[in-house]
Amino acid sequence: MADSPTIDAVFHNAVIVTMDDAFRVLQDGAVAVAGDRIAAVGPSADVLAAFPCAVQTLDLGGRIVLPGLVNTHVHTSQQLARGIADDVDLMTWLHGRIWPYESHMTEEDSYASTLLCGIELIRSGVTCFAEAGGQFVSEMARAVELLGFRACLTKSTMDCGDGLPPNWSCCSTDDCIQHIAEIPYENQLILRTKGIDHGTVTYLDKIDFLRSNLLAAHSVWLNVPEIGFFSKAGVKVSHCPASAMRMLGFAPIREMLDSGVCVSLGTDGAPSNNRMSIVDEMYLASLINKGREAYISGTTNPTALPAETVLKMATINGAKAVLWDNEIGSLEVGKKADLVVVNPFTWSMVPLHDSIANIVYCMRTENIESVMCNGRWIMKDHKIMNLNEEEVISSAVKRANDLLARAGINLPRRMNYV
Amino acid sequence: MADSPTIDAVFHNAVIVTMDDAFRVLQDGAVAVAGDRIAAVGPSADVLAAFPCAVQTLDLGGRIVLPGLVNTHVHTSQQLARGIADDVDLMTWLHGRIWPYESHMTEEDSYASTLLCGIELIRSGVTCFAEAGGQFVSEMARAVELLGFRACLTKSTMDCGDGLPPNWSCCSTDDCIQHIAEIPYENQLILRTKGIDHGTVTYLDKIDFLRSNLLAAHSVWLNVPEIGFFSKAGVKVSHCPASAMRMLGFAPIREMLDSGVCVSLGTDGAPSNNRMSIVDEMYLASLINKGREAYISGTTNPTALPAETVLKMATINGAKAVLWDNEIGSLEVGKKADLVVVNPFTWSMVPLHDSIANIVYCMRTENIESVMCNGRWIMKDHKIMNLNEEEVISSAVKRANDLLARAGINLPRRMNYV
Repeated sequence: MADSPTIDAVFHNAVIVTMDDAFRVLQDGAVAVAGDRIAAVGPSADVLAAFPCAVQTLDLGGRIVLPGLVNTHVHTSQQLARGIADDVDLMTWLHGRIWPYESHMTEEDSYASTLLCGIELIRSGVTCFAEAGGQFVSEMARAVELLGFRACLTKSTMDCGDGLPPNWSCCSTDDCIQHIAEIPYENQLILRTKGIDHGTVTYLDKIDFLRSNLLAAHSVWLNVPEIGFFSKAGVKVSHCPASAMRMLGFAPIREMLDSGVCVSLGTDGAPSNNRMSIVDEMYLASLINKGREAYISGTTNPTALPAETVLKMATINGAKAVLWDNEIGSLEVGKKADLVVVNPFTWSMVPLHDSIANIVYCMRTENIESVMCNGRWIMKDHKIMNLNEEEVISSAVKRANDLLARAGINLPRRMNYV
Repeated sequence: MADSPTIDAVFHNAVIVTMDDAFRVLQDGAVAVAGDRIAAVGPSADVLAAFPCAVQTLDLGGRIVLPGLVNTHVHTSQQLARGIADDVDLMTWLHGRIWPYESHMTEEDSYASTLLCGIELIRSGVTCFAEAGGQFVSEMARAVELLGFRACLTKSTMDCGDGLPPNWSCCSTDDCIQHIAEIPYENQLILRTKGIDHGTVTYLDKIDFLRSNLLAAHSVWLNVPEIGFFSKAGVKVSHCPASAMRMLGFAPIREMLDSGVCVSLGTDGAPSNNRMSIVDEMYLASLINKGREAYISGTTNPTALPAETVLKMATINGAKAVLWDNEIGSLEVGKKADLVVVNPFTWSMVPLHDSIANIVYCMRTENIESVMCNGRWIMKDHKIMNLNEEEVISSAVKRANDLLARAGINLPRRMNYV
């Protein structure tokens, strides 16, 4: 036994929702962690017996353990802009609010914004996210490292568009396009300029851009053949329900899932949502895709996107979407120890006749008690571990106000302030 | 000054969102409470100067004060059924799950269910709700009285329908019909049996049933003339966004508001939602009604149902819907002291560039710190005041499990439990 690894912790007496290929749920289960990896997943009695010398043994009292959730579309640099662009049309959103905001942002602002956003992500059970693109990637990285979780970071790239800040259009087209078929106008533009019979996705198929390493955000305005192109190429989709409702439209999610497309979940940025919670996106994804059927077939379909499918979208599909499913997205031996401890025994989740349904339809951020990433607690008993949350909030609020003043963004008052 | 009333409390240094006719917001405001009534609303300095002898003076540190929210469609007796009917079609929902559940319910179950539901309502900032109908009204009343908030209670009535429990169909038709134009089949049935040219609402207009004291829940499948009937008669509507998405379809809310119909917000019952939170319904109402425009006009309309309209739906419109707007729904002198203290300075709501928008789009139950009804705290600093929350939860969970066993409701497993 000399070369067996040190077991740092055994968490037992829990409902372990593994999200493995067999969709196993251990009713009285345990997870053993060694370093940054999962060393065992099994019945409590077996795991406890196998590792009697674990450094720490924690009785979870029947709580639920989930794999760390994956948020596949986040604009971390927009967190300071929450509330600056609500209830306005898309052109005002972009030209009057978001572009002035982003083009007046400093590197330090981006760091503060990512820290604030990261707190909300972790409190929603997220251990890994895909950045959708800002300007200061190294500042994002610095914040993510401090917070202690995982991210795939990226820089925004655009090469045309009225009012685009001039310093944004200097990147080569080799840089990745992430936003696909977001608005109908996009399809119209492609039709007019590229001489093809539908929109963006048809054009991207024609230029052989659709590959299994493409993560297509939103993906709202696709037709049936285009869903086929995605499926055939193995393109991954980030469905952002709240953002879609506000700005974009209803994506054909059921049809994509039926065609075998890997669909994951994202929040988009704070001014598009404004909650940055995958917990709420799970609820929304199930609801709006049930409701959407009223327009497809005349009545809603309450069986569309059942809870287990939605939970898959937020976990293993998220991991696949960021090409990291060999390491994260499910609780399996050898994978990274990224996990979420949920307390389901409060007023918001009881009774627990159907725990999986309650995770998707009832769970709130309040129920997420602790979050581990890479074998380390990044939130424990509701406390964010690696920074002083009050200081981050206070600094971010000051920077947000200064940034708006610098950018000359004045919001109309909605009510009569006296 | 001998006959001036005793001022029990002055809450000052707060953002007071009055929801009065002028939509006044006091930026450094105060509310004075005498007995069960609001004695003053005004700038902090003025109110403090006017009532130097208040029994209690509380500095709210810049927090937001809202009128108590009104939830106009709640099935309190269905709280123990949360999770029993997710992702199933409407016939399974009704015949396989809800009717067996409700017909095996005892009076004590109904009491426990209403208590559990009440905790969730209060934690969502609700001080008044309209019961949509169960069987044991006196038990609901007993629970509501203990919780310390307001309700309009009612008994379910139905006179036809396959599989209806026999003891439910013994009421006279003079009893109120509350569910209007809920599903397309309802309109088809009315067309076939009543010989009129559209659905339920046209028929109810014909028999002169549409009056200003009718609260019509859901109201999804109305055409334009029927919206006109509602508007002309002063019918009130309870829009239940989550329930509509799961089961019913998209109600023409923007069109009803444009026609001057008083639209309020409801959660419906736990097995239709499953969150019982007006906080979440505000977020949903704004999102899905923006998204719905994609099917009406080709693109979403991000300006539909702006935050101030949604907040009106959850407050003063709710009060009008239950015919109680002379007493509740806004913070005005002489009205009942029903109010909610929101802490907006946490990770979930900052920065506060647009407080009204953040109340609708970012606020979570976690931000609702204290709730007062009738001049008394029913939740203070997150603690429910009038009962032992742990005992209520534990008793409700036991009753819920026993009830399901008695009713013979066995849920299929969604995953592989080992």
